[in-house]
Amino acid sequence: MVLKVCADRLSAPSRSVLIFCKKNGIDFEEIVVTVLKGHQFSPEYKAINPMGQVPAIVDGKLKLFESHAILIYLSCAIPGVASHWYPGDPAKRAKVHSILDWHHLHLRRGAGGLVFHSILAPVNGMRSYPEILIQTEEILLRSLSKLENVWLKDGRFLGGSTQPSIADLSLACEVMQLELLSERDYHRILTPYKKVKKWIEDIRSATAPYFDEVHEHLFESQKGIREKMVTHSGKNNVRSKM
Amino acid sequence: MVLKVCADRLSAPSRSVLIFCKKNGIDFEEIVVTVLKGHQFSPEYKAINPMGQVPAIVDGKLKLFESHAILIYLSCAIPGVASHWYPGDPAKRAKVHSILDWHHLHLRRGAGGLVFHSILAPVNGMRSYPEILIQTEEILLRSLSKLENVWLKDGRFLGGSTQPSIADLSLACEVMQLELLSERDYHRILTPYKKVKKWIEDIRSATAPYFDEVHEHLFESQKGIREKMVTHSGKNNVRSKM
Repeated sequence: MVLKVCADRLSAPSRSVLIFCKKNGIDFEEIVVTVLKGHQFSPEYKAINPMGQVPAIVDGKLKLFESHAILIYLSCAIPGVASHWYPGDPAKRAKVHSILDWHHLHLRRGAGGLVFHSILAPVNGMRSYPEILIQTEEILLRSLSKLENVWLKDGRFLGGSTQPSIADLSLACEVMQLELLSERDYHRILTPYKKVKKWIEDIRSATAPYFDEVHEHLFESQKGIREKMVTHSGKNNVRSKM
Repeated sequence: MVLKVCADRLSAPSRSVLIFCKKNGIDFEEIVVTVLKGHQFSPEYKAINPMGQVPAIVDGKLKLFESHAILIYLSCAIPGVASHWYPGDPAKRAKVHSILDWHHLHLRRGAGGLVFHSILAPVNGMRSYPEILIQTEEILLRSLSKLENVWLKDGRFLGGSTQPSIADLSLACEVMQLELLSERDYHRILTPYKKVKKWIEDIRSATAPYFDEVHEHLFESQKGIREKMVTHSGKNNVRSKM
């Protein structure tokens, strides 16, 4: 039975799993679960992931969710995955875990939170709170600074590696989520982080052509969202809402 | 050179690492880093963990932070750690990773966030925002419900296990953090979750006497904090601040 990957390409964690599978030549079936239509709450999907989030996989009897757990599982369970994605050396592996764990409450909380509260919530008629918007942008800026000055201090990839790991893939897909912001906010937030921008290009090259292929849907949505945000006069600038 | 564990027993992730080391008879030196005094920002400590958070370990040349990464590293690197803490079976190990990953943006964000914004911030003269307090309590309540109805659905320990894993230890220390709330808030929030309360007792028994020993400082602090909160008239009830 072929591996099933339940994913929404608008979700950063979903994209990291899809790019990983494609880059490593893993045979899989992509099951589209459209989050903005609430498909993650259907009884069929909740039988796979009772938390109602994407991505999730079904591999034989195993149903698994949380993208980092999925990336680790696939790195170990699928023969032929190159070892740089999830190194066997205990100290190198520990560093990958450290980056992945740091991600959740820092870069993901900041980037995912800012995109949700400043873009997806207003565009979809949900309420957003100024204090939460300010807090998430602060978390994002601190996280980008740590990404630039700690994780990318010593090398081309995170933690001083010369080749990408699953942590690079996960965090790069998260930074790409910022493409949904207005062009002005995107440049205001990202421009100071030269190493981060270079690193995204390095991940793109290392996973070509799949990085662009899987992100295509994000860029299509970016266009539609930016048009919608223009109709919310003055609301296409995060700062203007604070 | 003996393993160094840099920790503050008021931090849930620190406690999980300390209890794990003690329960597994790991030889280590505890280096106290007092977060409320800002010791995590000292140049000496930032040379170990540039993120300025606890816990962190130093094992020979390896400097490692993020408690889940530390627990996984110690489970693999230290001979004699019982396999139930971090199972070798790929599907069981994947489940442990899934629970650990889920923890960050759900139970930890809810419990840690609520304790910080409702107790530690006001007691230490920092500003707290009602919207953020409401948001963190909502995240906590949803997380406790998932803990009760998903992770504890099928067994004594998380994910249907008969013996505890590092995920049980990490999440149990987080729930214990709620002891810092007022007695009234603690009971209001925890009382509906019978399985969660029973599971905490099971972890306490499985790691005796170290669970109580390491939590002793939390209970001492609870007394002082509750006395301080009474002097903030009407502020010892989370609801009253919303």
